[in-house]
Amino acid sequence: MANAAATVRSVTGSAATVTDVASVKSPILAAARDAGLAGRFVGGHPMAGTEHSGFAAGDAGLLAGAAWVLCVEPDTDLDRWLGVAALATGLGARVVPATAAEHDEAVARISHLPHLLAAGVATVAAAAGPLALRLAAGSFRDATRVAAADPSLATAMCALNADAVETAVQALGQQLTKPDRAALIDAGHRIRVGWPPAPPPLVRWPLHADLRDRLLALGRRGGWVEAVLPDRLAVRDPG
Amino acid sequence: MANAAATVRSVTGSAATVTDVASVKSPILAAARDAGLAGRFVGGHPMAGTEHSGFAAGDAGLLAGAAWVLCVEPDTDLDRWLGVAALATGLGARVVPATAAEHDEAVARISHLPHLLAAGVATVAAAAGPLALRLAAGSFRDATRVAAADPSLATAMCALNADAVETAVQALGQQLTKPDRAALIDAGHRIRVGWPPAPPPLVRWPLHADLRDRLLALGRRGGWVEAVLPDRLAVRDPG
Repeated sequence: MANAAATVRSVTGSAATVTDVASVKSPILAAARDAGLAGRFVGGHPMAGTEHSGFAAGDAGLLAGAAWVLCVEPDTDLDRWLGVAALATGLGARVVPATAAEHDEAVARISHLPHLLAAGVATVAAAAGPLALRLAAGSFRDATRVAAADPSLATAMCALNADAVETAVQALGQQLTKPDRAALIDAGHRIRVGWPPAPPPLVRWPLHADLRDRLLALGRRGGWVEAVLPDRLAVRDPG
Repeated sequence: MANAAATVRSVTGSAATVTDVASVKSPILAAARDAGLAGRFVGGHPMAGTEHSGFAAGDAGLLAGAAWVLCVEPDTDLDRWLGVAALATGLGARVVPATAAEHDEAVARISHLPHLLAAGVATVAAAAGPLALRLAAGSFRDATRVAAADPSLATAMCALNADAVETAVQALGQQLTKPDRAALIDAGHRIRVGWPPAPPPLVRWPLHADLRDRLLALGRRGGWVEAVLPDRLAVRDPG
């Protein structure tokens, strides 16, 4: 990663804005900073895809309505951030502002933990023998679907996001060891039937001076940037 | 459950075979034995369904190709077992023979554990706030799908199968605390891409004297009964 960042620096001029599309953001940010790219780097993560890879798995509608995280850090150049946001919203994505650390904590819980659990459930089921795998049906199929994906991707995500993944595993362990399983199942049910949250109202934001903090607060409360206009942003803001 | 078993006994004659369709088999078997029904009871579990309930969720093709476990115990009357198997295979299901304990161990791992994990993942994700739930996409959706189902069913299944569920949770915990996450992810991938196993060859079985043991061995190696004929069974046998 350090080599890639150094190469990018050597082949791009100072006017070029650099972004990326990796699933973990903190290590990329660190590599960009180490390579002296921080001032023109905007970390990104378009969150769309399936368990399939390659050109044949492409889909012209893949990004429509998908979240595309663009990282906002203390050293992020906001003009460059707005430029990348204009590109992403122009492709139909919802630009969600977050710090690299916030992104990595979130994806550890919504994506990397599910990948680990898919492998775990498959392994625990197989340990009960051919009878269990023969009886496995819908709940097994869905619980393990992402285990069908290229395992090297899940391994890389878990390795690059090891601390946040470990925290997520511990948090799950605490839920599973509580004696009141009915309370856990009820809580999970309420969360799941309320998901995905409805799109919040569309509002106009002038390009305020305190845009950095306002963008991060927007992301934390579940909002996103829907369009970048010359003098304002169109945002979906839960308020 | 004891009341229900006693009622069933009081309103049925000794010629009547009694079966059931519950998701956990050991407590039902115990209740049937306590009520003096063991000699004419055949525990069953048709394993088909979705996260929806009620008449509107019905589907004429629901049972076609679905596994329908029929329990074989030391006190099972095999003639009655064959009668229930003829009914289930006549509806298009694959009759998988297993003891109640084997069934309960298997479903703890392929169904009840996934239900608990769906609730756990939803709860752990929600704890990271609105940002995480906004970013949640395909892997979260599938990992938590069964949490959308009526929570009272999952709660009852986990409570009635508490020992096997606890064993499954412990087995998962052991997988998740191994330091080599790549090995777990690779193992899960191999299992998932090999699932579901291809249907094994169709063979004829005469109605041997040692049918009880042969049926249980068939289920343990991933086979099932496809049809019940007057003098033989048509079985799918991985051999």
